[in-house]
Amino acid sequence: MDTAAPISDRLDDVDEHVEEGRRKMDWALEHMPILTALREQFEAGEPLRDHRIGMALHVEAKTAVLVETLAEAGAEVAITGCNPLSTHDDVSAALDAHENITSYAKRGVDDEAYYEAMDAVIATEPTITVDDGGDLVFRIHQEYPELIEDIVGGTEETTTGVHRLRAMDQEGALDYPMFNVNDTPMKHLFDNVHGTGESALANIAMTTNLSWAGKTVVVSGYGYCGRGVAKKAAGQNANVVVTEVDSRRALEAHMEGYEVMPMDEAAKVGDVFVTTTGNRDVITEKHFEVMQDGVVLANAGHFDVEINLEQLSEFAVDEREAREGVREYELHDGSRVNVLAEGRLVNLAAPNALGHPVEVMDQSFGVQAVCVRELAERGDEYDAGLHSVPDELDREVAETKLDAEGIEHDVLSTTQEEYMGSWRHGT
Amino acid sequence: MDTAAPISDRLDDVDEHVEEGRRKMDWALEHMPILTALREQFEAGEPLRDHRIGMALHVEAKTAVLVETLAEAGAEVAITGCNPLSTHDDVSAALDAHENITSYAKRGVDDEAYYEAMDAVIATEPTITVDDGGDLVFRIHQEYPELIEDIVGGTEETTTGVHRLRAMDQEGALDYPMFNVNDTPMKHLFDNVHGTGESALANIAMTTNLSWAGKTVVVSGYGYCGRGVAKKAAGQNANVVVTEVDSRRALEAHMEGYEVMPMDEAAKVGDVFVTTTGNRDVITEKHFEVMQDGVVLANAGHFDVEINLEQLSEFAVDEREAREGVREYELHDGSRVNVLAEGRLVNLAAPNALGHPVEVMDQSFGVQAVCVRELAERGDEYDAGLHSVPDELDREVAETKLDAEGIEHDVLSTTQEEYMGSWRHGT
Amino acid sequence: MDTAAPISDRLDDVDEHVEEGRRKMDWALEHMPILTALREQFEAGEPLRDHRIGMALHVEAKTAVLVETLAEAGAEVAITGCNPLSTHDDVSAALDAHENITSYAKRGVDDEAYYEAMDAVIATEPTITVDDGGDLVFRIHQEYPELIEDIVGGTEETTTGVHRLRAMDQEGALDYPMFNVNDTPMKHLFDNVHGTGESALANIAMTTNLSWAGKTVVVSGYGYCGRGVAKKAAGQNANVVVTEVDSRRALEAHMEGYEVMPMDEAAKVGDVFVTTTGNRDVITEKHFEVMQDGVVLANAGHFDVEINLEQLSEFAVDEREAREGVREYELHDGSRVNVLAEGRLVNLAAPNALGHPVEVMDQSFGVQAVCVRELAERGDEYDAGLHSVPDELDREVAETKLDAEGIEHDVLSTTQEEYMGSWRHGT
Amino acid sequence: MDTAAPISDRLDDVDEHVEEGRRKMDWALEHMPILTALREQFEAGEPLRDHRIGMALHVEAKTAVLVETLAEAGAEVAITGCNPLSTHDDVSAALDAHENITSYAKRGVDDEAYYEAMDAVIATEPTITVDDGGDLVFRIHQEYPELIEDIVGGTEETTTGVHRLRAMDQEGALDYPMFNVNDTPMKHLFDNVHGTGESALANIAMTTNLSWAGKTVVVSGYGYCGRGVAKKAAGQNANVVVTEVDSRRALEAHMEGYEVMPMDEAAKVGDVFVTTTGNRDVITEKHFEVMQDGVVLANAGHFDVEINLEQLSEFAVDEREAREGVREYELHDGSRVNVLAEGRLVNLAAPNALGHPVEVMDQSFGVQAVCVRELAERGDEYDAGLHSVPDELDREVAETKLDAEGIEHDVLSTTQEEYMGSWRHGT
Repeated sequence: MDTAAPISDRLDDVDEHVEEGRRKMDWALEHMPILTALREQFEAGEPLRDHRIGMALHVEAKTAVLVETLAEAGAEVAITGCNPLSTHDDVSAALDAHENITSYAKRGVDDEAYYEAMDAVIATEPTITVDDGGDLVFRIHQEYPELIEDIVGGTEETTTGVHRLRAMDQEGALDYPMFNVNDTPMKHLFDNVHGTGESALANIAMTTNLSWAGKTVVVSGYGYCGRGVAKKAAGQNANVVVTEVDSRRALEAHMEGYEVMPMDEAAKVGDVFVTTTGNRDVITEKHFEVMQDGVVLANAGHFDVEINLEQLSEFAVDEREAREGVREYELHDGSRVNVLAEGRLVNLAAPNALGHPVEVMDQSFGVQAVCVRELAERGDEYDAGLHSVPDELDREVAETKLDAEGIEHDVLSTTQEEYMGSWRHGT
Repeated sequence: MDTAAPISDRLDDVDEHVEEGRRKMDWALEHMPILTALREQFEAGEPLRDHRIGMALHVEAKTAVLVETLAEAGAEVAITGCNPLSTHDDVSAALDAHENITSYAKRGVDDEAYYEAMDAVIATEPTITVDDGGDLVFRIHQEYPELIEDIVGGTEETTTGVHRLRAMDQEGALDYPMFNVNDTPMKHLFDNVHGTGESALANIAMTTNLSWAGKTVVVSGYGYCGRGVAKKAAGQNANVVVTEVDSRRALEAHMEGYEVMPMDEAAKVGDVFVTTTGNRDVITEKHFEVMQDGVVLANAGHFDVEINLEQLSEFAVDEREAREGVREYELHDGSRVNVLAEGRLVNLAAPNALGHPVEVMDQSFGVQAVCVRELAERGDEYDAGLHSVPDELDREVAETKLDAEGIEHDVLSTTQEEYMGSWRHGT
Repeated sequence: MDTAAPISDRLDDVDEHVEEGRRKMDWALEHMPILTALREQFEAGEPLRDHRIGMALHVEAKTAVLVETLAEAGAEVAITGCNPLSTHDDVSAALDAHENITSYAKRGVDDEAYYEAMDAVIATEPTITVDDGGDLVFRIHQEYPELIEDIVGGTEETTTGVHRLRAMDQEGALDYPMFNVNDTPMKHLFDNVHGTGESALANIAMTTNLSWAGKTVVVSGYGYCGRGVAKKAAGQNANVVVTEVDSRRALEAHMEGYEVMPMDEAAKVGDVFVTTTGNRDVITEKHFEVMQDGVVLANAGHFDVEINLEQLSEFAVDEREAREGVREYELHDGSRVNVLAEGRLVNLAAPNALGHPVEVMDQSFGVQAVCVRELAERGDEYDAGLHSVPDELDREVAETKLDAEGIEHDVLSTTQEEYMGSWRHGT
Repeated sequence: MDTAAPISDRLDDVDEHVEEGRRKMDWALEHMPILTALREQFEAGEPLRDHRIGMALHVEAKTAVLVETLAEAGAEVAITGCNPLSTHDDVSAALDAHENITSYAKRGVDDEAYYEAMDAVIATEPTITVDDGGDLVFRIHQEYPELIEDIVGGTEETTTGVHRLRAMDQEGALDYPMFNVNDTPMKHLFDNVHGTGESALANIAMTTNLSWAGKTVVVSGYGYCGRGVAKKAAGQNANVVVTEVDSRRALEAHMEGYEVMPMDEAAKVGDVFVTTTGNRDVITEKHFEVMQDGVVLANAGHFDVEINLEQLSEFAVDEREAREGVREYELHDGSRVNVLAEGRLVNLAAPNALGHPVEVMDQSFGVQAVCVRELAERGDEYDAGLHSVPDELDREVAETKLDAEGIEHDVLSTTQEEYMGSWRHGT
């Protein structure tokens, strides 16, 4: 079978897949007011007409609503996965069934097929790229540099991708403008605080069948994700302890009413531990050693290095699957340490994990959508390199959400603008 | 196959089942400090020696820890299910592997086999019965009244069972003492507030992939369950609206900072609706008609009559499975109403539902365990009929939990007791 | 001067006093929706016509609104203070200016004058008595038993008064019906939780100029008052520690997310201590000894015996007024313990204390008012002795408040009533 | 009397004033752990030896602790008030009694005396200036430019002062380095959120005798102050409504669970209104017109222009002092609007107002103190003009507070630093 063919050519029962994929997308769309509103705007004005968009994303229902929105805006879209394991074939088929979209994403392909599919996307000669992790923009720069002159720009939404792009940019090796969607206020104020906070807690509860009330929950890291986890855990009647390396953040946590202590102390008192630092070795051997029997450890940060599982595995005298998604390590004194989802992001890797809530992705993808529109309309005004999302685009998405929810708010009167202006700019 | 035989005689791969059942029970036991402590006490004193306990319960991991605890106390235990669909065969097998326990519970049996298994339990001539719904105590009264004189008493833990027992009691037809475990403070203060509150919200989130932040959540009923749902939803940054028929509770909700309004108004503004009234027809046709598009309806009360689904089904122009556990009804104006878990208890009936959290069941089952011990030790001091759990037993369980968690608290000094006494009893 | 004369005869500048008292009463009335509504009802129906009401209360603005409400209902009212120090002469004068009211209350009178004024009230031969502490009902029983046969009943609203009445009742010495207003749900659910909670915290903050954020606040006692203080302190970002002698309440506090520990431990970690136990010797010498330097101690319970100030004074090497309302005790190690308001109720005795919030008194006085109406209308149906407030009267006040606030709520349909009934009463 | 003489020469009973001032300062110092710690450090190292510090500040207890701390560091200090009405003469006298401090501040002086006192401070030829509002730095630039060459720098802590300095800086007219203490994280994260939030609410409660529970509280502006007020009001069981002109902040408030609406709507539903916008005309005639009877309006923002009192006064048919600190305006329909503290900052201008809590000023003044030390040690490294406080100084204060509170926190290991570094800087 041609592994670089559109998914519809590679599935049996295409219609059933399309129907099931469509059903999943419908649910997401029903709860994505921003993309719904942008879709209306885009269908009317077709701002992406004459553009070809190449995408490499996790092909599942929420992402698919973004893809379709861009297609509705007049673009020809070609898409593939950004990870061989994250594709939902039914959603991929439903996308491929759209007249303006070709989807090459298929679950479980090998490395060769993964890159063949990506090359198929690139072969459509995209004028705009949308990336999740940077694979697409990298491959274009490495293998198809001749296409770059026709590319007006691209977007990237993950920490990892932005990290790689920043390195390229610093070396002067990023040859077209890329928007850093990862660092916009509309992402970290909501996705991190509410999305990570809520989904981490719900997944921990549903994986363990344990409750939060009366638990001592140790939250490591008091950045946006940590604040979300701490606040939501307190909101479920947990007693929250915060560990943090930054003194000002530690003070913020203290003044919020949480107990702050080093992990060496927190390890002794916690019932549940949630890491959100983005760093490694937050919980290590010396901590496992002093933990109470039956503790639960989960990571809501980034990579699976926050809890040092290698050390835990060596330190333990026995280990086993205590229940689905829970690995239990028995220590020499008989006490047990339970690690959820192999220390990977618990809201993505837990047994019934659904990733971030729909509405939160609506906000992030809303920023993606207006960034793509911006590139189509004004891409030539941006230099090659990594760009912050212009603040007015970020605010436009906030405004779109408020409108869609029917929430009105005040606007400055002329007198008020003058008054503020007199303050800002001096008399 | 003999449908009234112990489960071990009716399963292939008994050993595998036992191992898997044991694994599930171990997880529960690890997080049940009260039963763990009582088990130690019971193993030492064997307060149930010379007793035969007949049980009809949902045979799953948490219940099984209770069953095993009673067996460790020296009792001979025979158990069957209280519902043909709720038995986990692996847990049943693991129980049956215990030398003091015989389990007749098997999943998916028909009515005849269900009662054959119950009769097998009764045939052990229990001296104490433990019920969940009252089937066992009823059948003994109806079919085996000759056994009653040797029964010292029993316990019942559900609303339904207590309701039936109360009716019997009022007719003078309850011929041995039964403890009403359902109405103890240790149950409603924790199980309802924290257990229902947390598990309802987690199940709704995991079934819908939606978030709570910024949602208007309508909680119907401001009893213990409603308080739990309201508080925990607010703790996830929802805007909570309460509907309530009792004026004093309505005022309590208002003074807590929630908006209170009739369902006729709440129906227009809610995003998510959670019923906890224990009554019927809380949400009806006139409400569906004015709801926003895409609302989510769930029941965390009791039976599946709180949301009138018959009316909804008739009122809708179309309905379909929007996703697993979500039935979407399309109304004449195109708006959609989504009902979770067919309007049944969402924390039991949602796709990945696990029931109440382990710790909360530990508290309820702790009360069961001390009630059984009380019957063994002092059953003859109780008249036939329905009895409240003696307050000192309820408090003993609270004290046991605090001890197990290592939480110390103050005790009254003699001077303080005298001072309080002088207040209570007059000078 | 005749110390038993109405206050108007004993003041210079009566008009100015009346005007100032009126101004204070107007503010209270403006924020007392329940009494406002009852007043309308009472003015229309004059349910108290032909009644003489004798009252002994703290004569200040909020109470005065109750007094006036009864007068508007057609009663002749005679009032005196229930404490020589709590009378506001201007409010007393404003009451006295009402054609149906005679006020004998004057601030700062001696014991003899206090009882002369009370006797003047009694001399009006009241048919209903309204008490705060029980002095009036006692004096009538002791000195004027011949008046009792014309008294239809009375109300009492304080713990102290109820305590004395209960003792009388148990001895068979209470010769007319008295309503125990102190123990109604409308009082403890709101007055204790919200009234005490908020006013204690505001007074502590305004007396010390300290903030709550990041403070460890030790709340002693987890009854209704303690819950209020704990919840409101957490809501100001304090870290709350609870001490409690009752194991079930201790567990409730733990499950709410607070740390629970004995005072011996809490004494070491607290920054601010608030006692709400109603008991004595909650904080004693062994606690002072281990406290941190600069701690703040306040009582929001009942009498000034919760903090053992005698021991503190002996234990201290020095003491002084650190600021108005704050007594600082220096201990042998140089550390300082600060006691607010001499250990008396901080929301009444702090320098700028205003007592309970207006709205909360509105609820308690609303119950008083409907109880007085009940006595006028149906007093003969009650036996002599202490009576709980009938639940329907308590609920009427809740309903009145909701109405006045424009808050509608659901009512049970006939079908729903039947459904609930079938549950309650058996099939 | 020489109005430019030190206060000790202008008071009768100097000793009594000194003692009382000392008592006030002791209370503040006892609750200022940061300044206590810095004082120890400063006394040891005397970093300000050989410096003369000129200060113009509100001379009250909390400020005085800062002044004394600088003197303990070896500086000669001369101080005067920054507002003729804010000086506490007793505190001024207590400062003047310090051998290194001369205080010229006296309450209630006229304009001429105000400037004479300032000139007396300037006459000491300060090498460092500490300002609150900018009067000192302005006067030096205008009247004594010859002194500037010996001034190493200064600090300014208010919005107003920074505003004026920024204007000077932009015109190139600021001739020595000034630190903008107003905009440091240590100020806005704590002073605004916790300081303003808590003190505004406590002052409103104590001025009105009203409670928060069940109130609809409209918070205008969702910046740091608004967040504090909203969070703390919700923490007192108010139902919070937010008005905001910035769409992203409006969305943040919505996602936090608050209702967001324009003031035109909020005006109809609010019970209490708190403005925190820093703008003018937030509440105007059209809003007064639709408000409920008895609403309470307070300003916690900046100037007294947020509520348009001129319009209210014209619109009203009558106005009067409803109680101390409360002006009641009666409108044509008989409804009443109550404005607290004449629309000025309620936590400064309410009847018993104490300003910001002690601990919060400790944090702001801690930043002042380390900034002064920085100027003494490294002032020559800063150019003339307005400077942000270096982040390491701001963090030093956070660290000092944590140390003083005995709160330990984690530090990055070398491996962790490398890991983070690899992320930040690329591979």
